[in-house]
Amino acid sequence: MIRIGVDANGGDFGVEATVPGAMRAISIYDDIEIVLYGDENKIKPLLTNSERITVVHTDKTMNMGEKDPIKAVRGGKDTSLCMAMYAAKNGEVDAVVTSGPTQCVVMAAHLIIRRLKQMERVALCPLIPNLDGNPRLMLDVGANVELKPEHLGQFAIFATVAAKEVFGIKEPKVGLLNIGSEPGKGRPIDKETYYYLEDLEGIKFYGNIEGDDIVNCPTDIILTDGYGGNICMKSLEGTAKGMAKMLKEEIKSSLGGKIGYLFMKKNLKRFAKRMDSSEVGGAMIFGIGKPVVKAHGNSKGYAFSNAIKQVRTMVLSNLIEKVVEALPEQKKDDNNE
Amino acid sequence: MIRIGVDANGGDFGVEATVPGAMRAISIYDDIEIVLYGDENKIKPLLTNSERITVVHTDKTMNMGEKDPIKAVRGGKDTSLCMAMYAAKNGEVDAVVTSGPTQCVVMAAHLIIRRLKQMERVALCPLIPNLDGNPRLMLDVGANVELKPEHLGQFAIFATVAAKEVFGIKEPKVGLLNIGSEPGKGRPIDKETYYYLEDLEGIKFYGNIEGDDIVNCPTDIILTDGYGGNICMKSLEGTAKGMAKMLKEEIKSSLGGKIGYLFMKKNLKRFAKRMDSSEVGGAMIFGIGKPVVKAHGNSKGYAFSNAIKQVRTMVLSNLIEKVVEALPEQKKDDNNE
Repeated sequence: MIRIGVDANGGDFGVEATVPGAMRAISIYDDIEIVLYGDENKIKPLLTNSERITVVHTDKTMNMGEKDPIKAVRGGKDTSLCMAMYAAKNGEVDAVVTSGPTQCVVMAAHLIIRRLKQMERVALCPLIPNLDGNPRLMLDVGANVELKPEHLGQFAIFATVAAKEVFGIKEPKVGLLNIGSEPGKGRPIDKETYYYLEDLEGIKFYGNIEGDDIVNCPTDIILTDGYGGNICMKSLEGTAKGMAKMLKEEIKSSLGGKIGYLFMKKNLKRFAKRMDSSEVGGAMIFGIGKPVVKAHGNSKGYAFSNAIKQVRTMVLSNLIEKVVEALPEQKKDDNNE
Repeated sequence: MIRIGVDANGGDFGVEATVPGAMRAISIYDDIEIVLYGDENKIKPLLTNSERITVVHTDKTMNMGEKDPIKAVRGGKDTSLCMAMYAAKNGEVDAVVTSGPTQCVVMAAHLIIRRLKQMERVALCPLIPNLDGNPRLMLDVGANVELKPEHLGQFAIFATVAAKEVFGIKEPKVGLLNIGSEPGKGRPIDKETYYYLEDLEGIKFYGNIEGDDIVNCPTDIILTDGYGGNICMKSLEGTAKGMAKMLKEEIKSSLGGKIGYLFMKKNLKRFAKRMDSSEVGGAMIFGIGKPVVKAHGNSKGYAFSNAIKQVRTMVLSNLIEKVVEALPEQKKDDNNE
């Protein structure tokens, strides 16, 4: 039985999204048990069955607008987010799913579950929608703004194993996000990383990819640092939202548009679905000792259940053990900074 | 009379786009004269009048796939691009418009026209479509991957004067592209630049903006280095193209979609127009002694005439003189590296 810890109070909608998501996942997968960390008074009325589900009470929640993640995690041991992380650290659950505030989730995973000693940095790896319908793994979009080629190499190995084990991609290709397609392009770190990845064992390096490849991407994995990853992913999200808004405005602006909408309603819904990241699952935290998936803050029940499905696959495939085998041993144990 | 030099052989379509664009501009503005640098055998049949238009013959063209811009510019004095730049340097024309290969255009402007001594770097400043219909100035999206806060400050002043003089914005706001909204976010250079801009005279600094603000932007100017600018702009372009493709696929996938399309054809065309960068003009090269506008490589006549319109306004408003007044004097003359 796979035991999944859920931060039930987290996210924009709290228990209103996480509990229906958990109930949905339980009904689909008979090999999972879920522990809901959250406000039992609010959770109980939402439970549709009591099988394979446990509630551990806390009415404390990590604030979605939290600006100081380290302080918030250190002072927030009794929040539903941190309680789920402690349970994973102590082996009470095998994995954690949360839609809490991103930087707090990364920090809590890092400070509570702890980094694998083979990984020198922790990465946030969301799934990026792609034209061909198969999402791409992009990392790091977290807070690592200064990475060395070795760190990016560790991320590449981690993501390669995850792409194989969790997403069933036979020979995942790794692309380096850069500002030109040829080797020798970009910042000094990009040039160094290019040559480092060319020689790195355990990955299939494709070469540089550019921002305009992002939703029509020739690689399965998009490797970048927290600066490039954040700018790229947010530009993608902002453009997609902006275009959807413009399209709605133009459709509503005339009678022809409104009539046309009635005919192509289904087509436009399918279009929206293809661009919707909640369809593909949540962002994975790579580099720590347990699988953790961070669902979108605005996830509703369906999206949250997809994140549970994803973390289930991460546990089932023994992802962490396989990554540890694939990663080269670090020279010194610097796990406890 | 404003004399505009046009790289007639340049771009994906060469004279087929540049000559109709020039003819269109001539017919609208009676205060411009155009010198077409290009293949006169191909140009002559396309001229619809001979008033205020001169052809200077060259059948040499800068290759759109050129990988070594410095070598290409140094060895390409007789290309239409370089000939237009030399004419600007020698005062034969007041400004240059080209749809040639971006890095070669930046390099030719830099090496031939030369940098202003008040500017330590040359920036490429495209216009980014925005939800409110008013484009935003983004710089630098060129090759400057390592900038100091002072360089970004000079770009901010240049763009502020351009936003006022060329686009009629009374008090342009400058935003710093970053990976968080609060001060203290980002790479060391982003943090330093934030505090530098706060104290910089001659600009109105708004603070950090993020990638998801990009098409719904609270500032008139988006300041970044060549790495962030390239990633952001290409992600925007790639997402916009990808979404347009998905939308077309979904519409074509059913009869309802096709019928709906007939009703909302005009609406969808207006939508496409709002996202089309050729509507707003070309990218400006900032930091050199003459106005230069780089139109999209795939510009057709209409887009190219918009780029001519834009460079005309740059000359008419005495942009370069006003920028020189606004910029602090540099300590040493390092114009001739």
